[in-house]
Amino acid sequence: MAKTPSGKPKAPSIKDVAALAGVSVPTVSRYLNMPERVSETKRQAIAQAVSKLGYRPNAIARALVREQSSQCLVLSSNTTRYGQTQVIQGVETAARAAGFALSIALIAEPGSTSAQIRESVQSALDHNPAGVVLLNFDEASAQALSMIPRTLPLVSVAGERNTEIAQISMGEREGGYRVTQHLLQRLAERGLGSSPVHYVGIPGGGGAEGRYEGWLQACQEAGVPIPPAVEAGWDVDSARETGRILGRKRGEVKAIFAGNDETAMGVIRGLEDEGLRVPQDVLVAGFDDHPVARIWNPSITTIHQDFQGVGAAAFAMLAPMLEDVSLGRAHGESWQAYQRFEGHLIERESTVNA
Amino acid sequence: MAKTPSGKPKAPSIKDVAALAGVSVPTVSRYLNMPERVSETKRQAIAQAVSKLGYRPNAIARALVREQSSQCLVLSSNTTRYGQTQVIQGVETAARAAGFALSIALIAEPGSTSAQIRESVQSALDHNPAGVVLLNFDEASAQALSMIPRTLPLVSVAGERNTEIAQISMGEREGGYRVTQHLLQRLAERGLGSSPVHYVGIPGGGGAEGRYEGWLQACQEAGVPIPPAVEAGWDVDSARETGRILGRKRGEVKAIFAGNDETAMGVIRGLEDEGLRVPQDVLVAGFDDHPVARIWNPSITTIHQDFQGVGAAAFAMLAPMLEDVSLGRAHGESWQAYQRFEGHLIERESTVNA
Repeated sequence: MAKTPSGKPKAPSIKDVAALAGVSVPTVSRYLNMPERVSETKRQAIAQAVSKLGYRPNAIARALVREQSSQCLVLSSNTTRYGQTQVIQGVETAARAAGFALSIALIAEPGSTSAQIRESVQSALDHNPAGVVLLNFDEASAQALSMIPRTLPLVSVAGERNTEIAQISMGEREGGYRVTQHLLQRLAERGLGSSPVHYVGIPGGGGAEGRYEGWLQACQEAGVPIPPAVEAGWDVDSARETGRILGRKRGEVKAIFAGNDETAMGVIRGLEDEGLRVPQDVLVAGFDDHPVARIWNPSITTIHQDFQGVGAAAFAMLAPMLEDVSLGRAHGESWQAYQRFEGHLIERESTVNA
Repeated sequence: MAKTPSGKPKAPSIKDVAALAGVSVPTVSRYLNMPERVSETKRQAIAQAVSKLGYRPNAIARALVREQSSQCLVLSSNTTRYGQTQVIQGVETAARAAGFALSIALIAEPGSTSAQIRESVQSALDHNPAGVVLLNFDEASAQALSMIPRTLPLVSVAGERNTEIAQISMGEREGGYRVTQHLLQRLAERGLGSSPVHYVGIPGGGGAEGRYEGWLQACQEAGVPIPPAVEAGWDVDSARETGRILGRKRGEVKAIFAGNDETAMGVIRGLEDEGLRVPQDVLVAGFDDHPVARIWNPSITTIHQDFQGVGAAAFAMLAPMLEDVSLGRAHGESWQAYQRFEGHLIERESTVNA
């Protein structure tokens, strides 16, 4: 593959396709526009070359009235959960202000095969986005990351730090640590300094793990007993059932850190089902600052995450890369930029001491 | 513009572009693939012809390994609210099962100019989706509807009935009517048969209006006083404030129908702020069956809407149209199909009589 002066691989051109297929450039051009006028043999040869080189006819998007692609693509494995929808909204607002339209493509859901994930990523890239923001919150999106060519402007949001790409991390671990410390302090104020903080996690993925690790670290540093972490499903009913189970261990469970706010809501309701009161009998905290957390009764102590800010920052990080490409410049330092968004604790009724 | 045997307008071809621009077909082809090798004068002429005819090089998408576009596009003005996210998820699951990838494009937000809406719709259509599902929940999406060429497979979800297109309606009016009747009945059981049901609406759009109209009709039929409808914002805090205001009219307000469940949550919290209990002092019902509604304390009576089912049905409605296009057939009856999804009442604690 051709290299740019900076040594970065260059996207394959129509000439590369023609050379590999053993046909002329006009034949490839004809194939792209009027395939019925190209012989079956040549069609197959060209299709193979297109596929092998991963050729994308960028020029076409450019030729469409606008001189270059003005589409920013968000890749995400989920578009229904609070965090993801807010990050997408943040990217959208920033992209639109800069004259870019936003499109969102779904990566095949968690549990899909690599081939399904590749198919969905490839299909999205076929549309020649100017740049990509990847919401890297789970295993499927982590796999998708490896399938995006490094010639394309890309910002990964969340996930493990990868120094080869531009990335924004969400400070999940620090948030988990901070909220657990808060619960331990409240327990100590109640004269329950040796009581554990129970963790009710959310399923898989990078964010969930960071929160868990932060909880673990805070418990270890405090030298309190560490009960086994419980995992609730994404649905609020499973969180409620978990709250009931913990509630039945009456007297043993004094503080619970739930992996997100919806889980905290379900846990609180489950504790109430067992006749326990929050915060009088059990302290409960969540994570994310979901809008409903502040009107829940009791309002829920949580880690506020600036999801929309993260989305806006992701687009701002993408912008200099888009410019590098549009001006034909070598990749600048922005291609490995890194930014960290730390959440902050919001204390509410669910962890108040009388 | 050319017509197919069925009389439907045909998409403009590369030949039409060449004819209008006064250049040869190979020149247009060259322009699309290597515009730098076309003279400035011809470039301008072709760009104008492309723009005037609304030419989309469909053949290009087809030429990309896959023989035809396998992308289904969802157009929506919002991707953060519960209903929209669930419909999108429903479309996605059905589309994926049929071998189509899903992409979501955001229509410029409500309040945008027609030009901005047109720009965002055009930009999404530039990607040559095989078909479109439009979430027609507000003014911006209603405008977008008129900008989608009738040659493209299209299903509109919600919005006013338009017999020229395929459409799924959501039974908002019937739901609003049903929930209001339920509240009136509960009031009567409490010996408050002449008390009004207050309506706290959500901002603008087709869904919101249907709910309002259903409420109005039920009140009129029952012959009860009709208090002015109050509109809360999308945020839960404004709903809470509305709940406080209604709560201060102590004794006057006995039943509230909130335009959606998040609004009901805010209203209940606001009533509690004023020392009122739900359902003992005031009956409250919502709309949508948001997952949190069933774990709220008290759990919230609501109209269950099968949003994911609507999404799946929208794709099922699109499928025969996609086939018409892919087989080059004339448009069948499916292009004006119509389906209605009725919600159903779920009675919960927030409207229980002791």
